Amino acid sequence: QRSKLPHVGTTIFTVIGQLAAKHQAINLSQGAPNFPCSADLIRHAHEAMQAGHNQYAPMSGLPALRQAIVDKVEALYGQGYDVDSEVTVMASASEALFSAVTALVHEGDEVIVFEPAFDSYIPMIELQGATPVVIKLAAPDFAIPWDEVAARITPRTRMLLLNTPHNPTGTVLSAADVARLEAITEGTDIVVLSDEVYEHVVFDGELHHSMSRHPKLAARSVVVTSFGKTFHVTGWRVGYCLAPQALMDEIRKVHQFAMFAADTPMQYALAKLMAEPQHYLGLSAFYQQKRDLLSQALADSPLQLIPSRGSFFLLASFAHLSDESDSSFVQRLITEHGVATIPVSAFYRDGTDQRVIRLSFAKDEATLLAGAERLCRI
Amino acid sequence: QRSKLPHVGTTIFTVIGQLAAKHQAINLSQGAPNFPCSADLIRHAHEAMQAGHNQYAPMSGLPALRQAIVDKVEALYGQGYDVDSEVTVMASASEALFSAVTALVHEGDEVIVFEPAFDSYIPMIELQGATPVVIKLAAPDFAIPWDEVAARITPRTRMLLLNTPHNPTGTVLSAADVARLEAITEGTDIVVLSDEVYEHVVFDGELHHSMSRHPKLAARSVVVTSFGKTFHVTGWRVGYCLAPQALMDEIRKVHQFAMFAADTPMQYALAKLMAEPQHYLGLSAFYQQKRDLLSQALADSPLQLIPSRGSFFLLASFAHLSDESDSSFVQRLITEHGVATIPVSAFYRDGTDQRVIRLSFAKDEATLLAGAERLCRI
Ligand SMILES: CSCCC(=O)C(=O)O
Ligand SMILES: CSCCC(=O)C(=O)O
Repeated sequence: QRSKLPHVGTTIFTVIGQLAAKHQAINLSQGAPNFPCSADLIRHAHEAMQAGHNQYAPMSGLPALRQAIVDKVEALYGQGYDVDSEVTVMASASEALFSAVTALVHEGDEVIVFEPAFDSYIPMIELQGATPVVIKLAAPDFAIPWDEVAARITPRTRMLLLNTPHNPTGTVLSAADVARLEAITEGTDIVVLSDEVYEHVVFDGELHHSMSRHPKLAARSVVVTSFGKTFHVTGWRVGYCLAPQALMDEIRKVHQFAMFAADTPMQYALAKLMAEPQHYLGLSAFYQQKRDLLSQALADSPLQLIPSRGSFFLLASFAHLSDESDSSFVQRLITEHGVATIPVSAFYRDGTDQRVIRLSFAKDEATLLAGAERLCRI
Repeated sequence: QRSKLPHVGTTIFTVIGQLAAKHQAINLSQGAPNFPCSADLIRHAHEAMQAGHNQYAPMSGLPALRQAIVDKVEALYGQGYDVDSEVTVMASASEALFSAVTALVHEGDEVIVFEPAFDSYIPMIELQGATPVVIKLAAPDFAIPWDEVAARITPRTRMLLLNTPHNPTGTVLSAADVARLEAITEGTDIVVLSDEVYEHVVFDGELHHSMSRHPKLAARSVVVTSFGKTFHVTGWRVGYCLAPQALMDEIRKVHQFAMFAADTPMQYALAKLMAEPQHYLGLSAFYQQKRDLLSQALADSPLQLIPSRGSFFLLASFAHLSDESDSSFVQRLITEHGVATIPVSAFYRDGTDQRVIRLSFAKDEATLLAGAERLCRI
């Protein structure tokens, strides 16, 4: 079979998930909560279904949900978006990213992407016949090397793909990063595709630098985020994107044919829950407690933790412990110690291995403590 | 803005839906039920949510749902599929079609597609840098001209996109069509992408010729169908596709990055309802009654009906009544007569206008009768 993605195998999340299940490991791998969502949210979804809201939603999303999104974004980040033409409800952040890349990146274009990168980014770019221009972020601080970014921009650079808070490293964009990004893109027509699915999970009082907070950047950005990560329902497949109309018009052309519309009753339910801002305003504190619980419980483990400033993830280095690859280390943690994590080399196309693993703390306390206890025994 | 799809506007379903809402027209346009789904289905979804099934499903779909699909397909069509590697649950039939075309059609390939065509088909092909080879079906019988198909196959023909039962014409593939298709594709490596979303809606005792019924064709086919159309939940966004493993491996590479997985609680609910085959085995009779009700109620209208053998749709010609375009006729029906339908020219890229409109009978009796009454007065 001729393949458009010859180098792609099964995603690491599936591979590790299956291995974890087989060995009944404590699962700190995927960025998916193992605790319940709000009972109100389920009730809202149930009521929407009973009220008969089970047929196609509008292609761009339920008006009430689009309005709730635009209101939230304006309140938090100060940027106004037109509710009819500049926001689209998507069937997951994944679909939003894919639709944006498919719509906006042409054959022969270049897209700047930072590694470690979420595993869909590079294949999405390659599917367009475009060239991923990969810039590596290195342990332990994973800072963006802006001079290198500036040096690698060419007339063919169409897009720069950002992710803040960052999966898997837990870094967040700083004001200084934003200033460099503004300066570097000024006068170009580079689109910033900003994956902000962990927008409400930023620790220690730091600010989430959404592109929507910075008017110059907002004018060239597609901002993508997820309801699943925010409301503990990663299986509901609802996300959204924001963009200036000229970009959004193109994105919707892809969305309307690739997916048509997102799940209707879930959109009704999410629109209702958006009226209770404590659900997302309290999320940073909620996850900071989990990060701290896991970090403290790992204090006696031989792993060396790398501080997390946002997202669901904490990195840990074992470079001082062993020469083995992170994949083999992760495999041993599952089979011998009963804890599942993700090898960070999976986020580098060339498998760059810094002997670092990723732990997800989007888990209940008992799971975090039990996982940490096992990791303390390695 | 440079566009990959410069000729694409807003889909006709959105345009007509908005106009219908504005004029409070009786809506016989979209192929979406206006009556409730099974209360059991809602109960199952609610129970799944309450049981905590709200996080990512496996990328390929819930095992129980995949098993139910494979069992049904084998029982109805005789073809076995491997539950792990040859069936994938998709977030809608739209996503399945899009993933299949994106994965399997390369730049420079040719794809044979019949018009009238559902409006996503040609843009999907064009997004790959491939060439749609359009073969027209003509009113009133819309038969496939197989000699023309044979003549237009070239070494670059990669795929043939079929749809049976057919939207918008209500035709269904016959045994003679299947024989021609087998003969024409034999010895080639053409993939048949078969959109069978109305598989359970075939009238007057005719057989649905799924590609899964014909082993030679099944071996080269991707069969796509929809749970939304079958269980009256078009807003739930769950469909699936079947394909030999070599093709499915490629399709999953796209699906895992474009969407990752379909809605989890809805998959649980659908898996449960699949255990009650009367829901789909009774669907042809259910919709045949609606087709007949609408046809009879339109007997006194000036429209000339074109018999429907399957799907949710009935075509009606007004060629003997007026010289106006079908778009302007449809517009007048909405604004002056308060009934929304779809102009069939919207299913031809070049706007071929045979003065035919499409009526959806996926509506409750009151709506069908009220719509017909208004159409009798034109
Ligand atoms: C869609 S796969 C899961 C994404 C995520 O949550 C992760 O990085 O673990
Ligand atoms: C996804 S748009 C609706 C498709 C359909 O049901 C139709 O042809 O009306």
